[in-house]
Amino acid sequence: MVRADAQRNINAIATAAVDCLSRDPDASVADIAKAAGVGRVTLYGHFPSRADLVDAAFARAIEDGDALLGAVDLDGDPRAALTRLVDASWELVNRFRSLLLAAQHTLPPGRIQALHEGPADRMRRLLERGRAEGVFRTDLPTSWLISTMQHVMHGAADEINAGRLDARDAARYISTTVLAALTPPAV
Amino acid sequence: MVRADAQRNINAIATAAVDCLSRDPDASVADIAKAAGVGRVTLYGHFPSRADLVDAAFARAIEDGDALLGAVDLDGDPRAALTRLVDASWELVNRFRSLLLAAQHTLPPGRIQALHEGPADRMRRLLERGRAEGVFRTDLPTSWLISTMQHVMHGAADEINAGRLDARDAARYISTTVLAALTPPAV
Repeated sequence: MVRADAQRNINAIATAAVDCLSRDPDASVADIAKAAGVGRVTLYGHFPSRADLVDAAFARAIEDGDALLGAVDLDGDPRAALTRLVDASWELVNRFRSLLLAAQHTLPPGRIQALHEGPADRMRRLLERGRAEGVFRTDLPTSWLISTMQHVMHGAADEINAGRLDARDAARYISTTVLAALTPPAV
Repeated sequence: MVRADAQRNINAIATAAVDCLSRDPDASVADIAKAAGVGRVTLYGHFPSRADLVDAAFARAIEDGDALLGAVDLDGDPRAALTRLVDASWELVNRFRSLLLAAQHTLPPGRIQALHEGPADRMRRLLERGRAEGVFRTDLPTSWLISTMQHVMHGAADEINAGRLDARDAARYISTTVLAALTPPAV
């Protein structure tokens, strides 16, 4: 069993890692230890490598974000519901753009998608309802469509980071593109 | 002016970097020096950091790939031409999946897209012709549509790396999704 003060330290470190990496994707282990108010020895005891810290920060941001997504109304017209869910998801991706970049630089292939299991499940349920109602295409696997949506959003974050896309345009471009990708082909 | 033997070393190192990073995204500077048949001091003289090596390898792969894409027939129906171009592009992305991963882990935001200027130009000309002919949507910027295509392909590479997508299915999923994203919305 993890003692209460150890659990408190782990929480403080994960919170500090989210804060620091959200400001600077290259934030160091020392920066994070300082922000968490713990010594480096304590930090390394819980997170042996910087990658472990990035992983914990990303997992925490997803978990908190998923709780916010739980408040999105997914009833009614599946296309309108999907637009609401994509808009809310993008708001989170955009807020955590810097942390996402740290994760892209640090985590092994597929790990970012694996950490998105919660949001992906929510998206999958909506997609399946829309497919059953004939509103979304059924000739491509749900897993591919979800991965496409995530990559379009993460791509937009990358474009904003690179100064090639205006953050104010991104939400409309993303929802328009995602809806087009989901629309059944004309017969 | 770079002396002939220096230029020969630079070429050998870039070629070796493409080879090594295409097999192992974590290939070290020592691995690459060995494969190029040059000493580490020589290598560091031309490429001060591993990131410089990854950048040079990625630029070389794009340049070689762009020459191959030049052979794709882009005449006739824009949708068919786009499918040919996307299929050929995907073949290259898939071949250089491991090198792409090294670039994603190493290069600063936007650098991967910046190195795609040649292929993006080719895509842009086809997109603009298709838009003029009323075949592709005009309500989103060409730059966004090109970035979307690249991110869908790079996303597929990531999914294959993670064992979540079968490489044999990827080409069809990608071209179907990309064409859907480009189709003008129903009136």
